[in-house]
Amino acid sequence: MRRAMFPGSFDPVTLGHVNLVRRLAAIFDEVIVAVSQNAAKKPRFSLQERCDLWEQALAEQGRPSNVRILSCTGLVATFAKENQVSALVKGIRNGEDLAYEQQIARVNLDLAGVETLFLPAEPSLAHVSSSVALHLYEMGAPVEGYLPAAVIAALAKAR
Amino acid sequence: MRRAMFPGSFDPVTLGHVNLVRRLAAIFDEVIVAVSQNAAKKPRFSLQERCDLWEQALAEQGRPSNVRILSCTGLVATFAKENQVSALVKGIRNGEDLAYEQQIARVNLDLAGVETLFLPAEPSLAHVSSSVALHLYEMGAPVEGYLPAAVIAALAKAR
Amino acid sequence: MRRAMFPGSFDPVTLGHVNLVRRLAAIFDEVIVAVSQNAAKKPRFSLQERCDLWEQALAEQGRPSNVRILSCTGLVATFAKENQVSALVKGIRNGEDLAYEQQIARVNLDLAGVETLFLPAEPSLAHVSSSVALHLYEMGAPVEGYLPAAVIAALAKAR
Amino acid sequence: MRRAMFPGSFDPVTLGHVNLVRRLAAIFDEVIVAVSQNAAKKPRFSLQERCDLWEQALAEQGRPSNVRILSCTGLVATFAKENQVSALVKGIRNGEDLAYEQQIARVNLDLAGVETLFLPAEPSLAHVSSSVALHLYEMGAPVEGYLPAAVIAALAKAR
Amino acid sequence: MRRAMFPGSFDPVTLGHVNLVRRLAAIFDEVIVAVSQNAAKKPRFSLQERCDLWEQALAEQGRPSNVRILSCTGLVATFAKENQVSALVKGIRNGEDLAYEQQIARVNLDLAGVETLFLPAEPSLAHVSSSVALHLYEMGAPVEGYLPAAVIAALAKAR
Amino acid sequence: MRRAMFPGSFDPVTLGHVNLVRRLAAIFDEVIVAVSQNAAKKPRFSLQERCDLWEQALAEQGRPSNVRILSCTGLVATFAKENQVSALVKGIRNGEDLAYEQQIARVNLDLAGVETLFLPAEPSLAHVSSSVALHLYEMGAPVEGYLPAAVIAALAKAR
Repeated sequence: MRRAMFPGSFDPVTLGHVNLVRRLAAIFDEVIVAVSQNAAKKPRFSLQERCDLWEQALAEQGRPSNVRILSCTGLVATFAKENQVSALVKGIRNGEDLAYEQQIARVNLDLAGVETLFLPAEPSLAHVSSSVALHLYEMGAPVEGYLPAAVIAALAKAR
Repeated sequence: MRRAMFPGSFDPVTLGHVNLVRRLAAIFDEVIVAVSQNAAKKPRFSLQERCDLWEQALAEQGRPSNVRILSCTGLVATFAKENQVSALVKGIRNGEDLAYEQQIARVNLDLAGVETLFLPAEPSLAHVSSSVALHLYEMGAPVEGYLPAAVIAALAKAR
Repeated sequence: MRRAMFPGSFDPVTLGHVNLVRRLAAIFDEVIVAVSQNAAKKPRFSLQERCDLWEQALAEQGRPSNVRILSCTGLVATFAKENQVSALVKGIRNGEDLAYEQQIARVNLDLAGVETLFLPAEPSLAHVSSSVALHLYEMGAPVEGYLPAAVIAALAKAR
Repeated sequence: MRRAMFPGSFDPVTLGHVNLVRRLAAIFDEVIVAVSQNAAKKPRFSLQERCDLWEQALAEQGRPSNVRILSCTGLVATFAKENQVSALVKGIRNGEDLAYEQQIARVNLDLAGVETLFLPAEPSLAHVSSSVALHLYEMGAPVEGYLPAAVIAALAKAR
Repeated sequence: MRRAMFPGSFDPVTLGHVNLVRRLAAIFDEVIVAVSQNAAKKPRFSLQERCDLWEQALAEQGRPSNVRILSCTGLVATFAKENQVSALVKGIRNGEDLAYEQQIARVNLDLAGVETLFLPAEPSLAHVSSSVALHLYEMGAPVEGYLPAAVIAALAKAR
Repeated sequence: MRRAMFPGSFDPVTLGHVNLVRRLAAIFDEVIVAVSQNAAKKPRFSLQERCDLWEQALAEQGRPSNVRILSCTGLVATFAKENQVSALVKGIRNGEDLAYEQQIARVNLDLAGVETLFLPAEPSLAHVSSSVALHLYEMGAPVEGYLPAAVIAALAKAR
């Protein structure tokens, strides 16, 4: 069985993330979305909320049956090995993303022998990111093109 | 079954290519190396020779049992679809490679609905390419760090 | 009156070029498409044919009234000055395009005091280029998503 | 009338910004400098001060008659539409700037249908930025090559 | 005498930094490692500790006789001039590093007439940085491939 | 003695090359300009002519006493070792140059143990290259800002 892991802080999950996972689900036998705690910065949503929002986002967009959402509180490399994944996969948009992700990929290969593959972002969604979406939401702009409905509802509730 | 296709002109196959395929063979159930005719430029080795050199290169480096070498005379996207691959995979070293490969990936997605994943080059082999290796060989420099022994022998024979 | 010049060899014009010119026509009072001779390489279509194909491409896609097609046999910078343009405009897709175009822009500023502005490619068309489209056409692939119908007809006729 | 908007936080305006606006004023009929509140980070100068410093900077460098300074407290895209601009314009220096600005440009196109053009930085000023200039000033280095005299005076006064 | 200065905050020194300095020591007559105070952010180790860790790191890895460690509390450009260096040298890994370092290099050339040369990172160490190493250490991962033993001991002591 | 080698095909030498060598001459005890045969493409000027033009270019611009011009018919790495250089130095303008030069630098390090340092191009000359200058000359444009007077004279004579 070929299992891919798609790691990130997903604070919150965007339509760009959902697009990547749906495409991955057609490439691999199973896809684990690893929602990492990301202790370094204060998240907008808790780890549990971020996992729940992923579940709701997949439910509303049509969920591939081979996707699982897991929370990851330790190192991604270790978590990948524990879950016996064939590879980590990260979305990339441009050379800046690549330079950063190559460094992380090498760290994960050294730590746990796990390879990382890169999947190019869908061009029409390449401008979508969690931080841009949150900024737009706070400025009162429409974010239906950026965020799943469940996330927008959660943001409205948190006001 | 998760099958990846690794396409290229491989004129000739380098130790960098072999490294990528060996890593891919551990990620997917099967890896097809698609040696393309590359009609646009006059190749150093014929399509058949390039396939043979791949076979010999894998034999000398320890061949993963799940790798097959096929020649591809048409469009890579069509060939990938015919062979029911889960994804194409290309090696990338830097942002310049990415910019080029993103364009090709999009073309192949449009043509045949086949996705492309990128695998980062092993850093210690990132300077290895077919053209650099051929240039060094022609200048009389040692190329054992660039090319499989079978390729070096074929170059010597072609003199 | 604010006039922009969109220079290129357009061998042949693609749907990406048409998209850029249509967007430019909404930004400036007038847009001159400058089809340059490009003596350096052997073109697929003659200068006259490339101008005609632009006219037909605009006709089929809905022509903005403020676009003119001119052929340019000398230096683009000189031609821009003669036509009293406010600025040259080039489409760019990524950092590689930018690095190249910055050099050309500086040359044109030095030669004739004409500035260059860059317009980002529409993401869904960023993989479209003359050379990719010609390659696909030669391989027998459908190119309706890359080239205007007039160009496809001209290619068929030239066979 | 062809009106361009040059948006930024300008905290504070540099000689690089002034150079870009003076060049833009020769390309468009009118240029609006939109000084945005930039609520995300604590600015060095207030929004009003930043607008005043722009006015003084233009006065000391020779002000083009077709430049207006406006403060913008909402979304740049909305403000651009309200002011009926033909396009937003951002200065760019390299591929890293481009990757970032392409994302913002796409957001603004989606939000309000406003296009963004990029103007390459004057090479001799490409190292000039607000943050570098402030850092140098705080270290006691001369900043006459980075900042308008009015900004240097304001920094001295704020000590 | 040809003296190079290798400046940085080195918070803390990594095996990547040591590799660069050892290579520089073979290129120049003397290499000064300039450990800068870096007032902008709260450092993990004090300036004195960072200098001491450099001394210990060089001692444990085999110290070239022509390397000196100095602390720098002012501007790097001024410090370079005071120490009559032939050039500053910075390590670079990719285009993102280059874009940033070109800007700093220009500032230092303007401030004190001192040139900057770039030395490419050893590929097998290109993923090693102070921040990645500290992050891994905090997550409990092994960091022997990232940090000198003296730094790991200092981190353990600081717990 | 610290000797740097500045290799290239220099077909022909530009004012950008002269600028780099003059700056290098102030950093190292000696600078060897290695004019390589570059057998791969048909050069505009012969190897001897390219060396002579370098001599004339330095004579007209004020020649640093520690610069020597040598022709190199073999591998640059071997030539560097034979001449006991401390390092090769290449000029770079942007990330695209860096990506290419990093590959060559690694090859030369592997072949002969010789390191490569990169010197950033002077921003006001970053658009100057041999190919751009030749193209402009052929189009009848003034090239005094691109080429030494000796090169312009040689081009005129070759007509």
